[in-house]
Amino acid sequence: MPDERDILKKLLPSLAQTGGVRIGPGDDCAAMEFRPGKLLLAAVDQLAGDIHYYRNSTTPEEAARKLLRRNLSDIAAMGGTPLWALLSVATKGRDSEWILRFCRAAAETGGQYGVAIVGGDISSLAAEGEVASLTILGEVEESTVVTRSGAKEGHLLYATGEFGNSLESGHHLAFEPRLPEGRFLALNNFASAMMDVSDGVLIDALRLSEMSNIGITLDPARIPLRAGATADRALRDGEDYELLFFVPPEKAAELEHLWPFAARLTRIGSAKAGSGVSDPQGNSLTENGSLGYEH
Amino acid sequence: MPDERDILKKLLPSLAQTGGVRIGPGDDCAAMEFRPGKLLLAAVDQLAGDIHYYRNSTTPEEAARKLLRRNLSDIAAMGGTPLWALLSVATKGRDSEWILRFCRAAAETGGQYGVAIVGGDISSLAAEGEVASLTILGEVEESTVVTRSGAKEGHLLYATGEFGNSLESGHHLAFEPRLPEGRFLALNNFASAMMDVSDGVLIDALRLSEMSNIGITLDPARIPLRAGATADRALRDGEDYELLFFVPPEKAAELEHLWPFAARLTRIGSAKAGSGVSDPQGNSLTENGSLGYEH
Repeated sequence: MPDERDILKKLLPSLAQTGGVRIGPGDDCAAMEFRPGKLLLAAVDQLAGDIHYYRNSTTPEEAARKLLRRNLSDIAAMGGTPLWALLSVATKGRDSEWILRFCRAAAETGGQYGVAIVGGDISSLAAEGEVASLTILGEVEESTVVTRSGAKEGHLLYATGEFGNSLESGHHLAFEPRLPEGRFLALNNFASAMMDVSDGVLIDALRLSEMSNIGITLDPARIPLRAGATADRALRDGEDYELLFFVPPEKAAELEHLWPFAARLTRIGSAKAGSGVSDPQGNSLTENGSLGYEH
Repeated sequence: MPDERDILKKLLPSLAQTGGVRIGPGDDCAAMEFRPGKLLLAAVDQLAGDIHYYRNSTTPEEAARKLLRRNLSDIAAMGGTPLWALLSVATKGRDSEWILRFCRAAAETGGQYGVAIVGGDISSLAAEGEVASLTILGEVEESTVVTRSGAKEGHLLYATGEFGNSLESGHHLAFEPRLPEGRFLALNNFASAMMDVSDGVLIDALRLSEMSNIGITLDPARIPLRAGATADRALRDGEDYELLFFVPPEKAAELEHLWPFAARLTRIGSAKAGSGVSDPQGNSLTENGSLGYEH
């Protein structure tokens, strides 16, 4: 439902923000004044049955883990550390055992990342189905936080991991949020702008370009493919939950040298003057045609 | 759905809490370490169509205001000040205009209380209907915060406002969260334990007694009635969103003298040794029979 999703994206950034809000809506997380030198990160994300997973084949544990990890991925994209979460579940047609298993798995998954679930609410729904909403809270140093808007002309575009075929491969239920990677990129000032790829690398690259007021040259041939993915699906499938980020060119060699993670690090493009996303031959990738799937 | 609601109530307090959590799940808000001398308050609450309002007769503005105010009432119950909120909406069958009106009204209502909506998410639902979830964040001084667990034998039980007939009177859509009242009670150390009444004064009094490990003598005849309410309905209807709190007896006269608000202040009972809620004749009000409606 692209139209409806856009409502909040368009409405929220236009609203007046009260004191204490340092980074308002529009980034992976909002950031507010917290402890001295630190920002409080906050993001909310939902997971609905038969929208984000199959109600009849996904276990409550798989669904809960996906919800937690989607939110953790937003903290990773700001270079932050997750701290706490609040969980709400609205359901009709699930028994107590399903709900208990879902909530317990959410708490256990949180615990694996040092996140305590500090509040929750369970409600009925009027019609069969369920949706869960999770608010994640975290922290990041003011001097370290990475937003979507810091890329400049000439910065190089990198991505972690692989892309495409997330649904069929089960990656969308089993991915690992890139928390250590995001922290490494932020703490060492490698990333000038960063986000996590949830809707597809092409549409998310476009968002990054818009927030940074730059254009992007993206080489589809360089995008690492998940097993079973084509180059086209790697561009558009989504649910990759990888980090997409810009690096100033003078830092690229050091980054590639120091990168200590098992996840692949791949340079897939660069920032240029202008707007939109084009291939190396200059053909627009973001005009005409599908940008990807909006979940 | 009392069983399902209880899942989180039972599960969350039993979970290990990470560092920085000062007041875990089970109170109106969780409280975490924040700025020096301050706690960060957090609570989540949902509003579902045809569960918490009538889908065919409630405007999106009325629904959004109710959601905001329910959450603000939780901040009031801790003696805190609201700061920020995150909103998620899952829907099927509502057009963009309905969603936009809902979100805009949520933002405007937040603004009236100094609350910025810093994040949001909109999702599809598999079946017709909608549910919104709001996470509220606020702050309170560590030396000021009021929980549900501080009442002692002999403390007097007070309530703000009136009770009963909330649904028919429209109070459930138009109530005013008791933020100034909660702040006054907390800052002046009048309240030894406090909560907001959402499910009915009787069941919420029982919760307060359990968290404070005391019994309560409650005089049904003293409970102020909203227009159209009977004494019995005032005990059990719920959705009053009034404050219910204990006051040490030596502070009661000063409180009644200083009370500066238009909302009524009424002494309706007292704390005694033991457990449960009884009337002045010693008859249990909380054994056998309906405690109220769980929303």
